[in-house]
Amino acid sequence: MARIAVVAGDGIGPEVVAQARKVLDAVLPGVVEATEYDLGAARWHRTGEVLPDSVLAELAGHDAILLGAVGDPTVPPGVLERGLLLKLRFAFDQYVNLRPSRLWPGTAGPLGSVKPGEVDLVVVREGTEGLYAGAGGSLHRDTPAEVATEESLNTRHGVERVIRDAFARARRRERRKVTLVHKTNVLTHAGSLWSRTFEAVAAEHPDVTTEYQHVDAAAMFLVTQPQRYDVVVTDNLFGDILTDIAAAVTGGIGLAASGCINPEGAYPSMFEPVHGSAPDIAGQGVADPVAAVLSAALLLDQLGHADAAARVTDAVATELAGRAPGVPVRTAEVGDRLAGYAAG
Amino acid sequence: MARIAVVAGDGIGPEVVAQARKVLDAVLPGVVEATEYDLGAARWHRTGEVLPDSVLAELAGHDAILLGAVGDPTVPPGVLERGLLLKLRFAFDQYVNLRPSRLWPGTAGPLGSVKPGEVDLVVVREGTEGLYAGAGGSLHRDTPAEVATEESLNTRHGVERVIRDAFARARRRERRKVTLVHKTNVLTHAGSLWSRTFEAVAAEHPDVTTEYQHVDAAAMFLVTQPQRYDVVVTDNLFGDILTDIAAAVTGGIGLAASGCINPEGAYPSMFEPVHGSAPDIAGQGVADPVAAVLSAALLLDQLGHADAAARVTDAVATELAGRAPGVPVRTAEVGDRLAGYAAG
Ligand SMILES: CC(C)[C@H](C(=O)O)[C@@H](O)C(=O)O
Ligand SMILES: CC(C)[C@H](C(=O)O)[C@@H](O)C(=O)O
Repeated sequence: MARIAVVAGDGIGPEVVAQARKVLDAVLPGVVEATEYDLGAARWHRTGEVLPDSVLAELAGHDAILLGAVGDPTVPPGVLERGLLLKLRFAFDQYVNLRPSRLWPGTAGPLGSVKPGEVDLVVVREGTEGLYAGAGGSLHRDTPAEVATEESLNTRHGVERVIRDAFARARRRERRKVTLVHKTNVLTHAGSLWSRTFEAVAAEHPDVTTEYQHVDAAAMFLVTQPQRYDVVVTDNLFGDILTDIAAAVTGGIGLAASGCINPEGAYPSMFEPVHGSAPDIAGQGVADPVAAVLSAALLLDQLGHADAAARVTDAVATELAGRAPGVPVRTAEVGDRLAGYAAG
Repeated sequence: MARIAVVAGDGIGPEVVAQARKVLDAVLPGVVEATEYDLGAARWHRTGEVLPDSVLAELAGHDAILLGAVGDPTVPPGVLERGLLLKLRFAFDQYVNLRPSRLWPGTAGPLGSVKPGEVDLVVVREGTEGLYAGAGGSLHRDTPAEVATEESLNTRHGVERVIRDAFARARRRERRKVTLVHKTNVLTHAGSLWSRTFEAVAAEHPDVTTEYQHVDAAAMFLVTQPQRYDVVVTDNLFGDILTDIAAAVTGGIGLAASGCINPEGAYPSMFEPVHGSAPDIAGQGVADPVAAVLSAALLLDQLGHADAAARVTDAVATELAGRAPGVPVRTAEVGDRLAGYAAG
């Protein structure tokens, strides 16, 4: 039995999560026990609460968290991000923020030169350090003398464990290649820590090919030659930006899945589509649930159900290969089809 | 008479700078007085010097600096970047790092959905603050307890002046639109300073349309809808990444120009192609000088020669419209043609 906490969230969150649950139930009938938590913008508007300690404690008792999307434009920036999403990543030590990108056969990406099937990369983004640590402040606010700082905090502990995870993932893949992305020529202190740690871990993995790129170059190459990447390991903020580029060149965030993973399983990992709550299309049944379903596949994989995860991923491949270009999707119909293929 | 300091630099730097000078001489005969400075990797290897104070003082006496490209893989990361490029940006208070991107008629970008002529944007990147301030350090280096920090420093002074510059530029353009890019939902202190300052300046410019985007969303939209941008204003590191994406979607850094500008003219501004020294193709006469020539056009504009700048830009348009797809360029021939068109 897998005990899953479900945070459907706001906007299209509940619609896409419903499909992910449909697929989970189809692929492993009777295995998933879901408990719903109504966190997000709606709860904040109603109660002023983002994530009460009691809820955090309850979530900690689950095997994993499946999240739809939280937020809406009426919530001030930072409230749900810092108070909920980042809070969970930090509280549950989810140091591997995993974001695979594939240009699926049958889909069309925006790049003329890249053929479907040619892109298959995964970004291993650090999830608990860097500029996301919340270390910063300001002085003389709202005066001409205002200064504001943001500090990137990096530890050998934090950097090494995520780099090790990237190498471990690369060894399970065909190309066995890891690209470190940073900005060592400007961020010399953190950059040096990342490079030295990368080189030390690389030395233990002679069977893995390695390369280094500056973040600006990587942003460019993701557009001009996304095929060249296999596993990319990078810091929290660079990973945030690069994974959106990777999503864009592989058909958009409508298809992009992510996992915030605590690999040791000391805490629950969290799985969520990269897209937001998309209030403009919420409630219309037209949101693409593929990203949520692929996130559920990552969840299955993390919980040790690799076969079931592969069946879900194959179901998505079948679905995408069968889509006629330009025809809008219907959320529930896609969910039904995916559940059918995956159960198959 | 315009007194220009020329730093041809390493790799393809001298080859492309020679073409830019050819074009400057053709478009304003007898006006440019150039003095050469041999800064870069070669000098560092020979003498161990990056930028002696005496040279910095000499450079300060010029009206502008034209730089080719510096660096090669044998120089440790940071030496030339911090010691030369960033040193000049900071010493000469070049707070506007200007990076225009156009998808020129006749060229092919990587995006199937974007037609030549449709993209015409300029990124106004802050050049003297943020994570580039060099504020950071590390403790317990090379031990398991190592920590490394990088600090982003932002002042109202620095943020406001670059935002004002972006609005001033937008008012001289047809669409009059400014997009602020930051990450206000995570970098709440600096993000708040940037947003509040942006809103204050926007209120003084009712004739300019404004929008805000998170950096990850902007990275994505630069790939999926680069047409939507007119003027983008952003911080130093975000600007570094976004301008490489903008370059990638408009045909690559081979065409991308940049200016590090001190708008008041208290110090010389510096103009350089975005591309690096490309040691792999150096000395073969095959580097595309267009980025260097467009950088010279930015230089002319900054020095008050708007007509001459426009003639150079038009010459580039003619050159690019006339290129047969797939035919390699010859550096000197391109320079000769551009000089001819611009003189014409
Ligand atoms: C919502 C925000 C805090 C988050 C991030 O920056 O990590 C998002 O952009 C993401 O990539 O998951
Ligand atoms: C070389 C490096 C210091 C520089 C930067 O990061 O600004 C470069 O990438 C650029 O964009 O001009």
